Amino acid sequence: MKPIRIGILGYGNLGRGVELSVRQNPDMELVGVFTRRDPSQVALVDSAVPVYLLDKLETMTNEIDVVIMCGGSATDLPVQTPKYAKLFHVVDSFDTHANIPEHFAKVDQSAKEGGKVAMISIGWDPGLFSLNRMMAEAVLPQGKNYTFWGKGVSQGHSDAIRRIEGVLDGKQYTIPVEAALEAVRGGSNPELTTRQKHRRECFVVAAEGADQARIEQQIKNMPKYFSDYDTTVHFISQEELKKNHSGIPHGGRVIHTGKTGVNGEHTHVMEYSIRLDSNPEFTASVLVAYARAAYRLAQEQATGAKTIFDVAPAYLSAKPVEELRATLL
Amino acid sequence: MKPIRIGILGYGNLGRGVELSVRQNPDMELVGVFTRRDPSQVALVDSAVPVYLLDKLETMTNEIDVVIMCGGSATDLPVQTPKYAKLFHVVDSFDTHANIPEHFAKVDQSAKEGGKVAMISIGWDPGLFSLNRMMAEAVLPQGKNYTFWGKGVSQGHSDAIRRIEGVLDGKQYTIPVEAALEAVRGGSNPELTTRQKHRRECFVVAAEGADQARIEQQIKNMPKYFSDYDTTVHFISQEELKKNHSGIPHGGRVIHTGKTGVNGEHTHVMEYSIRLDSNPEFTASVLVAYARAAYRLAQEQATGAKTIFDVAPAYLSAKPVEELRATLL
Repeated sequence: MKPIRIGILGYGNLGRGVELSVRQNPDMELVGVFTRRDPSQVALVDSAVPVYLLDKLETMTNEIDVVIMCGGSATDLPVQTPKYAKLFHVVDSFDTHANIPEHFAKVDQSAKEGGKVAMISIGWDPGLFSLNRMMAEAVLPQGKNYTFWGKGVSQGHSDAIRRIEGVLDGKQYTIPVEAALEAVRGGSNPELTTRQKHRRECFVVAAEGADQARIEQQIKNMPKYFSDYDTTVHFISQEELKKNHSGIPHGGRVIHTGKTGVNGEHTHVMEYSIRLDSNPEFTASVLVAYARAAYRLAQEQATGAKTIFDVAPAYLSAKPVEELRATLL
Repeated sequence: MKPIRIGILGYGNLGRGVELSVRQNPDMELVGVFTRRDPSQVALVDSAVPVYLLDKLETMTNEIDVVIMCGGSATDLPVQTPKYAKLFHVVDSFDTHANIPEHFAKVDQSAKEGGKVAMISIGWDPGLFSLNRMMAEAVLPQGKNYTFWGKGVSQGHSDAIRRIEGVLDGKQYTIPVEAALEAVRGGSNPELTTRQKHRRECFVVAAEGADQARIEQQIKNMPKYFSDYDTTVHFISQEELKKNHSGIPHGGRVIHTGKTGVNGEHTHVMEYSIRLDSNPEFTASVLVAYARAAYRLAQEQATGAKTIFDVAPAYLSAKPVEELRATLL
């Protein structure tokens, strides 16, 4: 069997994660990385893989099967995914939940025009968490879903801290509140406020002589980002930040509790959790598995946009389905 | 939309669970229960639902869309699923892991002959646990799966206790060993023996004057069932057994740990767990969701045997896929 030929669009943390994940999958081959930067300035893990200017991508429709889109959801993916879905099978991790229906419609039209398969909103949330929310609700319709994120680094919140005057650097962790987890697992279907579900912990490097009390108040009172949460602020040195907080861990869990019985007398708790040393490398691994699925669906003449809800799990695995049945069922 | 018309074959704990689950799903209708017993002796939760002798089933191909098979894997399902897969879409919970390929082949042939869809080995293990093992391995191929069962009642082990001379009644719980769970979650991919993974706890009602020491030794040394495990035996009264051990709880978890990075330097832990007040009612709920999927797949001209690996998740839900995308993705 000839390998599935992969292209990577964008080489930040996620693009690098995809490069690493493709190396773990012998049925795939990385054809190239495409970037808006000067290709000579982009250093891949494997220097044998070519780096091209983005313009080159549309000329390589004969060399690449699936392009994995590694740009951001704010401005890159809304433009890039519809554009390239006409030319290649694509997979993206579009994660602006409220705009998914609009993104789906645009990508679907493009992919159908080009006769291609486009997997959107793949990753863990949206992605594997969505799958667990959906399946748990289908199995136990008299129930309720709860999603908790963390403990993990929020890039957006870390950026918000770093924009404050007098802050040299900072890292923010989102942390689920243990009491909320216990209440949910107890099956009482509690109504939980934003503050009751998650707390935020910040590690901040302040400039010499900066007013730490003012910085702390500015963080804690920042609307949308922090003011609805119990937030803890720690001032530390740049060395300490680098030593203890340079990773990009994340994680979270989806808990569904549901009732069965003659009068709902039996409670069931389904819980799906992940704990990740590297958020981008894990997300990339999910994208790569769904790149395989996109390719396989296309072999069966499927076209158009798909989400994680539309893909039979067997398409994700490099193993033949007979082997899956014999060894993993 | 007309409802999906369901038949139940066999009315033990699982059949009763299916009856209760269908009541929670307004897009379904329970046409009848089919039994080898005298129908007048079978009391349903809803007395308005007819109970028929099993022979009647094959005459009702125009009245029933999907038959949910609620017999046992030892002798019922190997015969019944292939037989009825010619006449109806069917769902079973065949759980003899080693014989799944053979069962699949027989059911596949029947279902294809009849132009029907047959979902086999649906439930939680095989079933939702299989799905999690398979998907986790596809996402993190450099990793390892661990499955733990319990805390929960094992019917087979409880039966084995009750066959011992001098035992009036008994209940056996399978319990994962906490130290094993912690070792697995730590990401060190430990090799664990049977004894290291699970322990067994037995609650036994002995006949008056029976030799409890002999019963305890007979349990602990019983090959296959107990001798490979650390087993605890408690002698209690029939009243106590009834009061504290009459439920059928179960549960378990699938943990997958995998590595990513340039040199596998990042560890990720994916964990799927369930905690069930009623094992048969939960299993029944899974069967009912996959009955919906079987019906939908058939609307798209699919035929033959399918497992949980072959079904796109969207087919499980009564909600339109647009709504799933907008609310659960």
